[in-house]
Amino acid sequence: MANKGAPVVTPWEVKGEIDYDRLMERFGTEPITPELLERIKRHTGRLHHMLRRGVFYSHRDLDAILDHYKGGGRFVLYTGRGPSGPVHLGHLVPWTFTRHLQEVFGSKLFFQFTDDERMLIRDDVDEEAAGHWVLENAVDLMALGFDPEKTEFIVNTRHVSELYPLALRIAKGITCSTMRAAFGFSDDSNLGMMFFPTMQAAPCFLASERTGEPVPCLVPAGIDQDTYWRITRDVARKLGYPKPAQVHGRMLPGLTGDAKMSSSRPLTAIYTTDVPELVERKIAGADTGNHPARCPMYQYRYLLLTEDDEKARELYVDCLEGGIDCRECKARLAETVNRFLGRHRRRRRLIRGGVEKMLE
Amino acid sequence: MANKGAPVVTPWEVKGEIDYDRLMERFGTEPITPELLERIKRHTGRLHHMLRRGVFYSHRDLDAILDHYKGGGRFVLYTGRGPSGPVHLGHLVPWTFTRHLQEVFGSKLFFQFTDDERMLIRDDVDEEAAGHWVLENAVDLMALGFDPEKTEFIVNTRHVSELYPLALRIAKGITCSTMRAAFGFSDDSNLGMMFFPTMQAAPCFLASERTGEPVPCLVPAGIDQDTYWRITRDVARKLGYPKPAQVHGRMLPGLTGDAKMSSSRPLTAIYTTDVPELVERKIAGADTGNHPARCPMYQYRYLLLTEDDEKARELYVDCLEGGIDCRECKARLAETVNRFLGRHRRRRRLIRGGVEKMLE
Repeated sequence: MANKGAPVVTPWEVKGEIDYDRLMERFGTEPITPELLERIKRHTGRLHHMLRRGVFYSHRDLDAILDHYKGGGRFVLYTGRGPSGPVHLGHLVPWTFTRHLQEVFGSKLFFQFTDDERMLIRDDVDEEAAGHWVLENAVDLMALGFDPEKTEFIVNTRHVSELYPLALRIAKGITCSTMRAAFGFSDDSNLGMMFFPTMQAAPCFLASERTGEPVPCLVPAGIDQDTYWRITRDVARKLGYPKPAQVHGRMLPGLTGDAKMSSSRPLTAIYTTDVPELVERKIAGADTGNHPARCPMYQYRYLLLTEDDEKARELYVDCLEGGIDCRECKARLAETVNRFLGRHRRRRRLIRGGVEKMLE
Repeated sequence: MANKGAPVVTPWEVKGEIDYDRLMERFGTEPITPELLERIKRHTGRLHHMLRRGVFYSHRDLDAILDHYKGGGRFVLYTGRGPSGPVHLGHLVPWTFTRHLQEVFGSKLFFQFTDDERMLIRDDVDEEAAGHWVLENAVDLMALGFDPEKTEFIVNTRHVSELYPLALRIAKGITCSTMRAAFGFSDDSNLGMMFFPTMQAAPCFLASERTGEPVPCLVPAGIDQDTYWRITRDVARKLGYPKPAQVHGRMLPGLTGDAKMSSSRPLTAIYTTDVPELVERKIAGADTGNHPARCPMYQYRYLLLTEDDEKARELYVDCLEGGIDCRECKARLAETVNRFLGRHRRRRRLIRGGVEKMLE
């Protein structure tokens, strides 16, 4: 592994070998049990491979969301992204699962672009750069097949008129010391980073705010984002709105064996815009981890690309029993990724004009 | 005096006997010297009674503003108010002086309504209540004779789209510990109060931001607001904009001898909407302080109502030499205040429709 130090998992940084069960314990979340999976299956007819395989493995109040849905109630989905660079395969894990949830539950999705947060932590991202990435990233999102009628983009600096009054009420219910303890802010942290989490919290309550009725919200996201939702849940009661529920996903490992594919370490990432030759080169040079459980090649298939359980299992066994060598496995993966990205890019071109209109 | 404890002067609280010279020392501001008054007079032809009498007595960079103006440059004025209640005579001191500055220098005024801050510190102020007071207070302001062509209202929650990106850049340049040290925030302070000063700082740079040129800004306000401008000046360099200049005013004492007439202590205040009988009753019951220097009755005339120096001096002498007793003095003041407020209210009615349009 590239990094053997103590694991770090915060909204800004993930490094080291991640023990996902311990994260669940540390963050105080619940496992998605076989019983819960059965309940989901009863509503959805089938189980998404990310649920079958425990890619989304932890939750808070998912049972309450299902109770509500069973009673005929609607809930909204909410996730988002900091628009400061291209989208990579790691981003597609929670987005693909979110699209599935939208499809099977018919839920509206709020997708937040935290351009404000990007400008607060990065000096190379101004409004123009953030605006560019908002469009590019939105095209990537919609290319996954979200329903434009049920998808609403929230670009923080553009939609601040609606978010700010809500963020104020959230901020009023959180003390500075709570914020420091939760996020580990230091005395030198900039003031904006301290306030920003209230802007990320706001969309959890947007549907309730707009309708005047309590509308539950389910947030599918990587478990590294959990701190935001703990804070948001604590303040929900003061606002008189339902606590946002979460489903927490594992993170797609980086090419070099890092625990998380990350834009801030470009060598770890396969971007949706990478040309086929680059994808081949990146995968050829990747770290294999010497076991499918630790091999990014296998993880990309298992977590994201190979929906067929049988095919995934075959590869696992073949790898361990010497039925396939790493060079061959990598070549096949590059082919799969390039087929996937080729289709993704064609969809991107097709929908770009429509997404521009959605963002107007 | 109603309060003999150690004096407190912060943006939220003023109590105790104020030593204005010591405040200047403590905040590190400069006195408005006779030389500076001469320079102002050269531009304005006359000196406003609030300058002649040292009501506005302290400053930062007023000399730089005059240099800039002398060189043919323009500057903007900026002041504001938290819209959570009616306007009283104390508010009219800086506003009257600001109107004078607008008239003699032809400057544009940004007037900020900090409805966000009101909602953060008060539980009885929601968006509806704040909206009501925005209009009422704006009518009071414009009734003083501001030029509607040169006056722009900034209502924080309504104009947040323009303010927020600027507030973010300000927030990025301020650490949490700076904020705590400057404002005395505790661990229990709510997060919104910590962020809010960046929203109050933003209009200082709005003219520069809009024009892309450095446009200096002069803030006339009570000296109790100084903390905001110290923070704002520190961050100006990082934004590449001129540091905002200030002129600092004394505060109008309360009827009960408090150092500051304050809406949060209604018995200390004469509101612009008080009917004549109420004004008479309030003044009749006021504390006299036993010396014109400490007597609210005298201070109201000297700081605000009596522009004629000779008349002010006569009253001072008459009071000390027994030429007038307190009952007579109070009756005359009530008459003066009621004449002033009567005219003010007639102007309010006249302009209300126009101000509503300004706020649309």
